[in-house]
Amino acid sequence: MTNPSLSVAIVGVTGAVGAEMISCLERSRLPVRLQRLLASERSAGRELAFRGEERLVEPLRYDSFSGVDIALFSAGSAVSRLYAPVALEAGTVVIDNSSAFRMTETVPLVVPEVNSCALSYHWGLIANPNCVAIIASLVLAPLHRAFGIRRIVASTYQAASGAGAAAMRELRDSTQAAIAGEPFTRKVLRHPYAFNLYSHDTTVDPASGSNEEEIKVARELRKILNAPELPIGVTCVRVPVLRAHAISLSVTLEQSATPDAARELLDSASGVRVVDDVANNHFPMPVEATGVAEVLVGRIRRDAGDPSGHSLALFVCGDQLLKGAALNAVQIAEHLFASGSSTRQ
Amino acid sequence: MTNPSLSVAIVGVTGAVGAEMISCLERSRLPVRLQRLLASERSAGRELAFRGEERLVEPLRYDSFSGVDIALFSAGSAVSRLYAPVALEAGTVVIDNSSAFRMTETVPLVVPEVNSCALSYHWGLIANPNCVAIIASLVLAPLHRAFGIRRIVASTYQAASGAGAAAMRELRDSTQAAIAGEPFTRKVLRHPYAFNLYSHDTTVDPASGSNEEEIKVARELRKILNAPELPIGVTCVRVPVLRAHAISLSVTLEQSATPDAARELLDSASGVRVVDDVANNHFPMPVEATGVAEVLVGRIRRDAGDPSGHSLALFVCGDQLLKGAALNAVQIAEHLFASGSSTRQ
Repeated sequence: MTNPSLSVAIVGVTGAVGAEMISCLERSRLPVRLQRLLASERSAGRELAFRGEERLVEPLRYDSFSGVDIALFSAGSAVSRLYAPVALEAGTVVIDNSSAFRMTETVPLVVPEVNSCALSYHWGLIANPNCVAIIASLVLAPLHRAFGIRRIVASTYQAASGAGAAAMRELRDSTQAAIAGEPFTRKVLRHPYAFNLYSHDTTVDPASGSNEEEIKVARELRKILNAPELPIGVTCVRVPVLRAHAISLSVTLEQSATPDAARELLDSASGVRVVDDVANNHFPMPVEATGVAEVLVGRIRRDAGDPSGHSLALFVCGDQLLKGAALNAVQIAEHLFASGSSTRQ
Repeated sequence: MTNPSLSVAIVGVTGAVGAEMISCLERSRLPVRLQRLLASERSAGRELAFRGEERLVEPLRYDSFSGVDIALFSAGSAVSRLYAPVALEAGTVVIDNSSAFRMTETVPLVVPEVNSCALSYHWGLIANPNCVAIIASLVLAPLHRAFGIRRIVASTYQAASGAGAAAMRELRDSTQAAIAGEPFTRKVLRHPYAFNLYSHDTTVDPASGSNEEEIKVARELRKILNAPELPIGVTCVRVPVLRAHAISLSVTLEQSATPDAARELLDSASGVRVVDDVANNHFPMPVEATGVAEVLVGRIRRDAGDPSGHSLALFVCGDQLLKGAALNAVQIAEHLFASGSSTRQ
């Protein structure tokens, strides 16, 4: 390492994930020099604090990456497709939170606790997975390693934050209007959100009947778990919760495992906290997962829907903005820095 | 039929379900004479309107059932255990919304569209099933009849109303406090509810890891579907929605069926409305199921989690207070009346 400090840029810094990226970098052990706070022309000019210092948000441009070691992208796929090559050309390592490059074969898709090994072969571009895929993978990976997973059925309870800061505001505002009995005109969401839930409103593929989110979750999980043939059925649902996702999992194992064995395994898994207090009816909840680095898992039991006894049911909850996005990206940066591959020069 | 009018009593009339029982009776074709509005001593003395007429709520007593043909009970298991025998003794037919007698072998557990045949052998007591079991059964029964169901995995998204009117108030009040940034002291619920969700807070059986709600749903579905060995895995979750439940279902069939075949079947099923508009991303939602008699079903597709291709995924939504409770009870009364067995004399 020639330089003890790491020059970092955030692209999309004014979004919900961008704000958490700043916080995660502030708390990180990385010797971060926050070189550039980048956003669209519309958001440029605002000021954001980093370690107590007000910093100007600059518009993203083709020359934004000069001198930047690592760029954390979280501004959507279109921006990543345009500007990730620009950053790479400037010698910047890109950690991309969009779905633009996740399934590109030569791009590692990384949850550090699960497959940090995949970082050893990067050529500058690393993809940060879908939030549901990250959160589920932390619980699925130890089970897959120990017992082998044969199939997965998952139903999600996804928070507003996955649709961005504007969706979080719309949840609050529309709920306030509903309580007051006042009309509300939707600004960003397709469906009413106050005290309501709806099937994830990404485009549905008519052939499979799956929506884009479900397709992402399944194929990204297969890539992260290095299980290219694993059958995964996912139903993605948006619920009126602010920023932590929950996932109800039914996992069929190759080898039979007791709930106790699974609990013990998950208890020692990195990035996972078992919350499975039957006596006090205390299990993972979004309010308790919010602001927490670990993914919470509980309701660990035999799935009575599988007569073979090879299936476990589990309930998982994780902060969508932290481990589901910003924290995972910063942890990737930490791994790169520790292994000396955080700069490409 | 010697008497063209049917004398009805409601036990627990001041609760959330009781209020809907009044509305359902008002809309029913039954020649209802609402004989008695019954509640606890605490709620007695209030007045409630039935067909425009203010009626006094009376305290439930041992002599409350004189001259009553049908009593609709919705005051909890303890009240049903005490007073259903009293009503039966008075010659009243009891339709009981509590779980007290649902699994008693000689008590029919009825969803009229599914198993009205079970009403032919009643001896005065009929049980109204658990709300999730009712809503799911309307979609599962046609599939079971046509293709045979081999196993079910279900995750629920249950509304506040299932925990009663006080829980609905607590959802509103705690959410209002959360938006205002004010503290809130919980009155009736074990867990925070504003923008949160939690595992259904009934007691968890340490042996199976299932909670009471999950056990009810599974065993009642088996009884309603007349499928005593059917493996059913259920995860019951309370979400911050007011009064319509949603259920994510993975159904493994004996005979393979295409999503189109299932959709066509459900389209002609009684009590079911298919809402499965892929082009407009329009699927079942609690706000659209609220106040609606039918159960909505959509997201009908192959479950990618089953490599055999024998599984379908579906998303169901139904009004918990209507078809999940009050309406189903009134429909049972209508069937009894039509078949001439609405009085025991």
